Amino acid sequence: MRIDLTLLERRLDELYAIGAEPDGGAYRPLYGEAWAVACDRVEHWMREAELTVHRDAVGNVWGRLEGSGGGKPVVTGSHIDTVRRGGRLDGALGIVAGLGAVQALEAAYGAPQRPLEVLVVCEEEGSRFNTNFWGSRAIVGAIQSGEADRWRDPAGVTLAQAMRERGLDPSQIPAAARSDLDAFVELHIEQGSVLESAEVALGVVTTIAGGVHLQVTVSGRADHAGTTPMDLRLDALVGAAAMVEAIAHCAAVEGRPAVATVGKLRVEPDQINVVPGRVVFTVDLRHAALEACRNLTQGIRGICETLATERGLGLEIATLHERPPVPMHADIRTAIEAAASEDDVTTMALVSGAGHDAQILASRCRVGMLFVPSNDGRSHCPEEATDRSDLELGTRVLARTLHQLAY
Amino acid sequence: MRIDLTLLERRLDELYAIGAEPDGGAYRPLYGEAWAVACDRVEHWMREAELTVHRDAVGNVWGRLEGSGGGKPVVTGSHIDTVRRGGRLDGALGIVAGLGAVQALEAAYGAPQRPLEVLVVCEEEGSRFNTNFWGSRAIVGAIQSGEADRWRDPAGVTLAQAMRERGLDPSQIPAAARSDLDAFVELHIEQGSVLESAEVALGVVTTIAGGVHLQVTVSGRADHAGTTPMDLRLDALVGAAAMVEAIAHCAAVEGRPAVATVGKLRVEPDQINVVPGRVVFTVDLRHAALEACRNLTQGIRGICETLATERGLGLEIATLHERPPVPMHADIRTAIEAAASEDDVTTMALVSGAGHDAQILASRCRVGMLFVPSNDGRSHCPEEATDRSDLELGTRVLARTLHQLAY
Repeated sequence: MRIDLTLLERRLDELYAIGAEPDGGAYRPLYGEAWAVACDRVEHWMREAELTVHRDAVGNVWGRLEGSGGGKPVVTGSHIDTVRRGGRLDGALGIVAGLGAVQALEAAYGAPQRPLEVLVVCEEEGSRFNTNFWGSRAIVGAIQSGEADRWRDPAGVTLAQAMRERGLDPSQIPAAARSDLDAFVELHIEQGSVLESAEVALGVVTTIAGGVHLQVTVSGRADHAGTTPMDLRLDALVGAAAMVEAIAHCAAVEGRPAVATVGKLRVEPDQINVVPGRVVFTVDLRHAALEACRNLTQGIRGICETLATERGLGLEIATLHERPPVPMHADIRTAIEAAASEDDVTTMALVSGAGHDAQILASRCRVGMLFVPSNDGRSHCPEEATDRSDLELGTRVLARTLHQLAY
Repeated sequence: MRIDLTLLERRLDELYAIGAEPDGGAYRPLYGEAWAVACDRVEHWMREAELTVHRDAVGNVWGRLEGSGGGKPVVTGSHIDTVRRGGRLDGALGIVAGLGAVQALEAAYGAPQRPLEVLVVCEEEGSRFNTNFWGSRAIVGAIQSGEADRWRDPAGVTLAQAMRERGLDPSQIPAAARSDLDAFVELHIEQGSVLESAEVALGVVTTIAGGVHLQVTVSGRADHAGTTPMDLRLDALVGAAAMVEAIAHCAAVEGRPAVATVGKLRVEPDQINVVPGRVVFTVDLRHAALEACRNLTQGIRGICETLATERGLGLEIATLHERPPVPMHADIRTAIEAAASEDDVTTMALVSGAGHDAQILASRCRVGMLFVPSNDGRSHCPEEATDRSDLELGTRVLARTLHQLAY
């Protein structure tokens, strides 16, 4: 079996040119012009590869290679949309490598036993509307009635209007649901530097991390920065600073894959000569196990409460969002491991800190993911890159995995 | 000698009603309508008290009581402008108490030997234009040629235009300079809680603190909050948090009157799920002695550099603004102390962390300041208040101080 790396790279370059932004990177928001051109381009490649193409009610593109033995299909693919100034590989790699793997398998082994499908997920990033996983949620039937009328982009266009502009009928969304899928395998870039720092070229995802978003409000007293001695202050920012450090410490002590990030922080009144009276910040924390996630949340709440009490500060902690970890299916992990060992490829088991379509599709079929390294851990930016040899290796192991599952 | 507390309170109430804002507090920005009404009101009171009134080229109002022996005048007063939602006493007290003290002195002892002048400083707060000490800078001849054309308010009106709207000619600014002043004594609220927490009703200012404004930029690397393990991060906010704590610690360890405040802080990119790549924050630090101010600045720079280096973060520290401490004149401090002891009033020597007109006038005459307590240390807000008994006491000691200097 031969992976055509030249073809793979050319297709990645072609997709990256669609929605190219002036300062580098590409932007292909859901149902936009660049998005439509990109979908057409992949459909064209699918037809060249003689796959049977179908677009579903939300615009997911499916390319099918029939299986000689029938049965439920094995699916591979990823999302076609991007963040602003997105890189060349996020999403695109899973589509291009998935198609390349199916072409390589057919060339080497002919028709599979089970059907093989290549899936272009219409949206995963949430860049245009304030919702994400639109494509995979449609596939598992999880889009609520009326949702398309509720979400608006920054220009005020509803998701339903945007669908109609692309010839899609929002009332038909339930028709996109599939209950006949056997498995979904996605190749993705890691978007972090765990593999690179371990010098391992292939990651097998064990779990997509669960997470909690908290909003922490620290209340002190705004005072004159010149006239209020240090010992008479209730400085909300000094208190919040202690919390920011303690939160990072909590996750560091817990060790991988626990992460906790204070990403947003706002000071009030935010004046150079006024002691901060209030600070509001967010915490994004993630872990692979539900229990560990809850323990980390409790730990962080506890330390913030202690620090606030010690300093006489007020504290409110609100949970903005909570999602459980999603384990990858053992069968698919085993298939990936077996595929890698066929090629003597060393793998590393790791948790995905980022969300992926696989976590949504897990409610309808067996799912699994392979990661290739991200150079310098960079992603969601024009610098996003993976070595050619790793792209080839990832595609090859993906193909062998599909072979295990479908032949 | 009798201080008319009822008159004092009525005048404070009258001034506070001029420029009253819907949600409480008063706003009398330089050369605005409320400002003009307030100046007229004080001029009216001065004329009632049979003082000779003069308005100078920038709109400072001077009310003079001639001295039998001639010589250089002894001056008291404060500023008439306010911050937004300003309180009842900041500035206003110094004017009303100054006028009340001069009236009480004349009633009790007749004409002074040296001339006594009550000064309404047109502007001190910098609320309308991005400059302050406009009134006192004019008196010491420190306004630069062309300055009035340079400063603009948020509506784009230049300071020169605003002057013309009040019938003042910007080309005449140099005529406001006075070189004949002997002394300036200002009664002001503390705007902090040092006196209140020490349960002392009268503060004698030793020095108006000097200060430095720094802007600190901490550079790390923006990373995915889900995919970047804690041990592979360069989190600018965690680094900045350590600095915020260390800066407060530096000033606390140094002890009163050292203060250091991180008042403004901005995170980039400020997204819930992105590790902060850059943080920019300000430091406002103040101390009573130039050397101590420099040492504190050096200490803060040093600890920030150490913390950045330890964490592999980039660091830039820019000095935005620097002003030396201004000591109050020993003669005036002695006169205030003597005046207080005449009444068996306990005093407390303290540093003014806030800036005042006295620090500008110090370049042309002997200056001194008296502070009365601010309830709960509140100022620059509608809650600004001082006990009636303290208002009376402050005015009485001010009057006795003027008696020492002018009779």
